[in-house]
Amino acid sequence: MASTTSSRDRVVVIGGGFAGLNLIKHLDDSKFDIILVDRNNFHGFPPLFYQVASSGLDPTNIAFPFRRELRSGKHHKAEFHLGEVRSIDVAAKTVTTNLETIPYDRLVIAAGSTNNFFGNDDLLKKVYTLKSTDEAIRIRNEMLDRFERASVEPDAEKRRRLLSFVVIGGGPAGVEIAGALGEMKRYVIGRDYPTLSPDDVSIILMEGSDRLLRTMSEKSSADALKGLEALMVDIHLNTIMKSYGDDNIVTTTAGDTFYSEMVIWTAGVQGVQFEWKGVDKPVGGGGRIVTDGYCRVDGLKNVYAIGDIGIHTSDDAPRGLPQLAQVAIQQGKFLAKILNKGRTDRPFRYKDKGSMATIGRNRAVADLPHYHFSGWAAWVAWMFVHLLSLLGMRSKINVLLNWMWAYFTYNTSLRLLLRGSRYPERGEMWDGTRSK
Amino acid sequence: MASTTSSRDRVVVIGGGFAGLNLIKHLDDSKFDIILVDRNNFHGFPPLFYQVASSGLDPTNIAFPFRRELRSGKHHKAEFHLGEVRSIDVAAKTVTTNLETIPYDRLVIAAGSTNNFFGNDDLLKKVYTLKSTDEAIRIRNEMLDRFERASVEPDAEKRRRLLSFVVIGGGPAGVEIAGALGEMKRYVIGRDYPTLSPDDVSIILMEGSDRLLRTMSEKSSADALKGLEALMVDIHLNTIMKSYGDDNIVTTTAGDTFYSEMVIWTAGVQGVQFEWKGVDKPVGGGGRIVTDGYCRVDGLKNVYAIGDIGIHTSDDAPRGLPQLAQVAIQQGKFLAKILNKGRTDRPFRYKDKGSMATIGRNRAVADLPHYHFSGWAAWVAWMFVHLLSLLGMRSKINVLLNWMWAYFTYNTSLRLLLRGSRYPERGEMWDGTRSK
Repeated sequence: MASTTSSRDRVVVIGGGFAGLNLIKHLDDSKFDIILVDRNNFHGFPPLFYQVASSGLDPTNIAFPFRRELRSGKHHKAEFHLGEVRSIDVAAKTVTTNLETIPYDRLVIAAGSTNNFFGNDDLLKKVYTLKSTDEAIRIRNEMLDRFERASVEPDAEKRRRLLSFVVIGGGPAGVEIAGALGEMKRYVIGRDYPTLSPDDVSIILMEGSDRLLRTMSEKSSADALKGLEALMVDIHLNTIMKSYGDDNIVTTTAGDTFYSEMVIWTAGVQGVQFEWKGVDKPVGGGGRIVTDGYCRVDGLKNVYAIGDIGIHTSDDAPRGLPQLAQVAIQQGKFLAKILNKGRTDRPFRYKDKGSMATIGRNRAVADLPHYHFSGWAAWVAWMFVHLLSLLGMRSKINVLLNWMWAYFTYNTSLRLLLRGSRYPERGEMWDGTRSK
Repeated sequence: MASTTSSRDRVVVIGGGFAGLNLIKHLDDSKFDIILVDRNNFHGFPPLFYQVASSGLDPTNIAFPFRRELRSGKHHKAEFHLGEVRSIDVAAKTVTTNLETIPYDRLVIAAGSTNNFFGNDDLLKKVYTLKSTDEAIRIRNEMLDRFERASVEPDAEKRRRLLSFVVIGGGPAGVEIAGALGEMKRYVIGRDYPTLSPDDVSIILMEGSDRLLRTMSEKSSADALKGLEALMVDIHLNTIMKSYGDDNIVTTTAGDTFYSEMVIWTAGVQGVQFEWKGVDKPVGGGGRIVTDGYCRVDGLKNVYAIGDIGIHTSDDAPRGLPQLAQVAIQQGKFLAKILNKGRTDRPFRYKDKGSMATIGRNRAVADLPHYHFSGWAAWVAWMFVHLLSLLGMRSKINVLLNWMWAYFTYNTSLRLLLRGSRYPERGEMWDGTRSK
């Protein structure tokens, strides 16, 4: 139910990720009625999705209910509407979700990015992806199910097939999930699954370019390669998947095929797509919405795009800014300031605070603006940066406890196959999938 | 993969609930090779399922991975096999799961109980149930989804329909989930869902007999009734559901019908069923397996049944013992002692330590063998009894923190709609269900 009419402008924000939530937190709610629309009822934390996928963290550790986050004292700073946006009507000034149509005075699109299969959309059904908490839970359940099934499988060849993992894409997400799998292979299998051996598990990481983490420094790339090799991850650079079917990956390199029953796809992202009414789609490369230097969508009045979904090319960034949490956070705050003031000042400038990626359990690489470091120290730095970014003291403590526990014991209480479904009679299969 | 041959007897245990896990913990693994088979890879905690369903606890707080629990120091006390048992072949001495066939020397059936629809099995598809962690998650997601959809629904009548909850069965599970819903209606709605009013929510509890908690004292029944009424739960005693279709419940009381879009069924349990080969089904009333006073299945050698699934009638218990955690725990320990000794001594005797149930957030009823008490003191007692029963210090601390947090703030970070699925292209609907 939308709020009652008011003389204040209504700002509708699509998406409560880093960009949308930071915008709302800094927006002056005495000037605006704010409505947040999101497909989930919680703010997720993408940098740690890979830890949910690998049972290192529980999804609840990194999911924050909007209805709590949007409360400030006794009142709600913004109204929350669950819904998946289907279309935006620029002429009628409305947003339509699967549940309702919401009128806006100003619209901020912060819906983020999702998987990109570069036209091969049939892949979606075959591979596992990591762009949401739900997708991470799906990976966790499938991985744990495979380890369990393999551990009661007497045929060695079948065991190896069950545990043939391929990760596509050598960016941070790919490196981090491959590292977590490597930890599993190297340290966990022997202890938790006495009928399995590390040799039963194969982990291949495929990257199309000539190095891992190619948005980072050469040193980071080299350290990541070394770190993953130590975790028995088999790395194939300059290797691009052409097709995947019948559990076989065919690459563009002549003759190379790889067997894999579980492919994790981290190789591409694109802006989340909507239907546009009353205007030509203001969408450019990578499915991103084209804006000017003030996050205003090209050719539209009172419509803004921030975070992963927006793109503005300039002399500083001829291909637009990278799709990173830091950019989203800074743009959210920037746009709040503009809207509060009611006028533009200087255009948005991204302040690069550096980037990081973990390689396994206690090693990371870090590129600060003028300094590279790696190993255990980088891992500790990575840990603290991410802890501090989590919302709320309680999550910080929970995550820290989980990490310390895992660090000292390699134990995790989180290797749980939780499905939320059980009865085949309800159309739910025993393995968590549905019949048909 | 089963372990290598050994001269020791192999004990296969079906089900790692209170009965099975306590048996294994007390079984002498220098005398037996132990294999645990369970459909889940974790030990659940049924007394607190209703708290998962009502977002009071996270499923991970009360789920304990078997692979960790079965480790004692460096070796594994028992081998764990994930699998859902389909059949037991008494002649061949094997158990067949959906994944494999396992030979046994001795078989302990501790598979517990599941929902009983008294022949009306079509109900399974229409109602929500609470007999496993997965079923509790399903209730949580459906409840949260309904609150979200109602909060963007402008039509008051439709809002009320979305939030028309009926709980069938006035035993502990029914009373506890109705109480949790009542707390939601009375205290949470107004604060977390500003567009909803408590009047939008209706909660009906139906019980076939003339009092709630009829296995407990009359005083407990009266206190439960009063407590739930204070939480705005509408209680109908002597009311039995005859049928449920098109969102309408028809009762056996002439003319009474109730509208409900979400029915939670806690009205009946039965033993988990398998196919039996080489023998007539040794199954009696309530689908329970008939045993003698030593938990030995009638007419079978080296086959035992303990916990909810077993029944032995005697002068003390002409209808068998109640299906309670305490009975299961005590039978697990009892059978371990018999198997370790290799001979029977005195038959099993249940030592009744009393029973308890919560009514809402900070009130409970407790019947000790010679003493009844209720209110806040009973709630504190209930809390400590359940905390102490949880496995591991870490879960105890986590659950205590969650409870204290909720007690002082009514806040919960756990109202998360986590689905583990997302893409309609994968056959997954946006609302978490699958298309067809």
